[in-house]
Amino acid sequence: MVMKIAVLPGDGIGSEIVHEAVKVLKVLDLPFQLDEAKVGGAAFDAHGHPLPEATLNLAMASDAVLFGAVGDWKYDKLDRPLRPEQAILGLRKHMGLFANFRPAICYPQLTHASSLKPELVAGLDILIIRELTGDIYFGQPRGRREAPDGEFKGSPEAFDTMRYSRPEIERIAHVAFQAARKRGKRVTSVDKANVLETFQFWKDVVTEVHAQYPDIELDHMYVDNAAMQLIKAPKKFDVLFTGNMFGDILSDAAAMLTGSIGMLPSASLNAKGQGLYEPSHGSAPDIAGKGVANPLATILSAAMMLRFSLNQEEAASRIERAVQSVLEQGLRTPDIFSEGTKKVGTTEMGEAVVAAL
Amino acid sequence: MVMKIAVLPGDGIGSEIVHEAVKVLKVLDLPFQLDEAKVGGAAFDAHGHPLPEATLNLAMASDAVLFGAVGDWKYDKLDRPLRPEQAILGLRKHMGLFANFRPAICYPQLTHASSLKPELVAGLDILIIRELTGDIYFGQPRGRREAPDGEFKGSPEAFDTMRYSRPEIERIAHVAFQAARKRGKRVTSVDKANVLETFQFWKDVVTEVHAQYPDIELDHMYVDNAAMQLIKAPKKFDVLFTGNMFGDILSDAAAMLTGSIGMLPSASLNAKGQGLYEPSHGSAPDIAGKGVANPLATILSAAMMLRFSLNQEEAASRIERAVQSVLEQGLRTPDIFSEGTKKVGTTEMGEAVVAAL
Ligand SMILES: CC(C)[C@H](C(=O)O)[C@@H](O)C(=O)O
Ligand SMILES: CC(C)[C@H](C(=O)O)[C@@H](O)C(=O)O
Repeated sequence: MVMKIAVLPGDGIGSEIVHEAVKVLKVLDLPFQLDEAKVGGAAFDAHGHPLPEATLNLAMASDAVLFGAVGDWKYDKLDRPLRPEQAILGLRKHMGLFANFRPAICYPQLTHASSLKPELVAGLDILIIRELTGDIYFGQPRGRREAPDGEFKGSPEAFDTMRYSRPEIERIAHVAFQAARKRGKRVTSVDKANVLETFQFWKDVVTEVHAQYPDIELDHMYVDNAAMQLIKAPKKFDVLFTGNMFGDILSDAAAMLTGSIGMLPSASLNAKGQGLYEPSHGSAPDIAGKGVANPLATILSAAMMLRFSLNQEEAASRIERAVQSVLEQGLRTPDIFSEGTKKVGTTEMGEAVVAAL
Repeated sequence: MVMKIAVLPGDGIGSEIVHEAVKVLKVLDLPFQLDEAKVGGAAFDAHGHPLPEATLNLAMASDAVLFGAVGDWKYDKLDRPLRPEQAILGLRKHMGLFANFRPAICYPQLTHASSLKPELVAGLDILIIRELTGDIYFGQPRGRREAPDGEFKGSPEAFDTMRYSRPEIERIAHVAFQAARKRGKRVTSVDKANVLETFQFWKDVVTEVHAQYPDIELDHMYVDNAAMQLIKAPKKFDVLFTGNMFGDILSDAAAMLTGSIGMLPSASLNAKGQGLYEPSHGSAPDIAGKGVANPLATILSAAMMLRFSLNQEEAASRIERAVQSVLEQGLRTPDIFSEGTKKVGTTEMGEAVVAAL
């Protein structure tokens, strides 16, 4: 059975890094059908929209999407619905990709690259699970209006709606508890129940769902405290589980803690197992086209794709071992380079992974 | 003219640390009238409410409030309106304390205490300005209901409203630009304009207000990126300025970066110059009553109070120099202790500051 993969390189370094990941997929000799389409600023330039219908249809009809990155300063002046990042929000919403997995792992060879003292991050391995289709990202109503009440009644104001329904919280809670079962069996649910109705409800529902997982330890933490604990003692977390808005902030913080965000993949899944796979880093327009971007996060995202959406655990592990081996060989793109290792470019790094396979 | 100070010690270590700050105020020999009242869990225990009317009235009638900390696990099971933290939200709202100042400073003597490598934090001096009476903290409507629309229409859901009106953004933007004028003249306004209507409006209004401050450099940063940059290169920030929700998360993260949150004061001001002054750390019920809490954040909060609400710049600086001098003497409470320094308790530390005055 052919596995259909939509390849959406996007903007900035997107095409360079996705190119290397595609090379890696090709040497696996599995029955892939790879179809490429434009997304983000590149799609806006070519078709006047960051997520053209053809791109969305291709993604929806695929088993998985391999995504590069979107965004460039030159699109900053566009109206919001036309900006590159709307493509990623549109794909999440239309494909129902509610479960975002973002590992924050500190590779032994790269511990020194962290801002944190080595003893605080050596061996770090957190899995962040972020709800991705609810919360204030998509809640209606939202917009501008005259303030309907309060001290500034009648003044212009803007507003958004944070909301979570019971079934949305339940399904992501199941994902988090099940993921914890395959790891350290501990879930920290991050909320702001002391201030927000939405997150008091989140806490209540997560606590209920937890009754079905007596083997998993659950604790609750306020988001401000979670931001502090990530800096103070990140290794205390196993699965850090939260909503869309808090997850946006905490997953980026956790990735940065490792010092090697250029190594970190991500997966966004829907209820059917379809998924979108992308590196945790952005489109880095400042280094685009220079051949220096680190393709490993994208290559590792392709490995997650094989595991989660295509049921190819063995191929996934092979890629992960190959990445491990290029690190052991001492190859480093500039973002993770240090004294005593060998600096290589995007292509060389991709080819080294291919060779290691 | 007598300066009226409401003293609200609160829970946990609150009374111990406030006690030391009061000692320090008393040796200044200024015409203070100090009136103490219960707040938080202590007020709930005594009067059935975390912010009794008498306490609120005392605070409102004072020139400034010296606040300890509130909260204890034993109140976790209470209904939300009765929990200790409602006192602090109530004081902010009723007194109109919209401007929160939180410095994140790394003292040269304490650089080693940071999770971050010393070169990244040595000399760190960020001022975080957080809007404190708007945003999703107080926006109406909020609550539980049946989902009115969307994929889960009819399911139970909880919701909150994020909102900012033009005058609310304008007044805090003026505060931020004016504060920057007395420092490094750079403001980073943190938003999530790529997703939220509220924060696109925030960005637009801040940009407009900035036209009145041509001497100040302004840049805009998304909140997820700000969380990363704080970890990667915190010293690049001068004034970090944001809304209530993002400010809650980022100010705690920044405080933790310094490694010495026990040293960090905060001020929350209203339009009349009245203010509430409290340490950035919490009530730490685990060490309450043991005489080991660090009183310096509270003592430095009293210094901010003298400067911002009581117009006693000289007394404020005297206290700050006294704190500096006890650090130079090598005195340390356990939270900031390290090899080669002298470990002291709460009282000894407070008395050392008194002596240094
Ligand atoms: C680009 C932006 C809309 C997006 C988000 O906020 O979710 C990004 O920050 C992410 O985390 O994938
Ligand atoms: C106690 C809580 C309501 C409060 C907040 O969220 O503002 C606290 O975290 C703070 O930052 O002062």
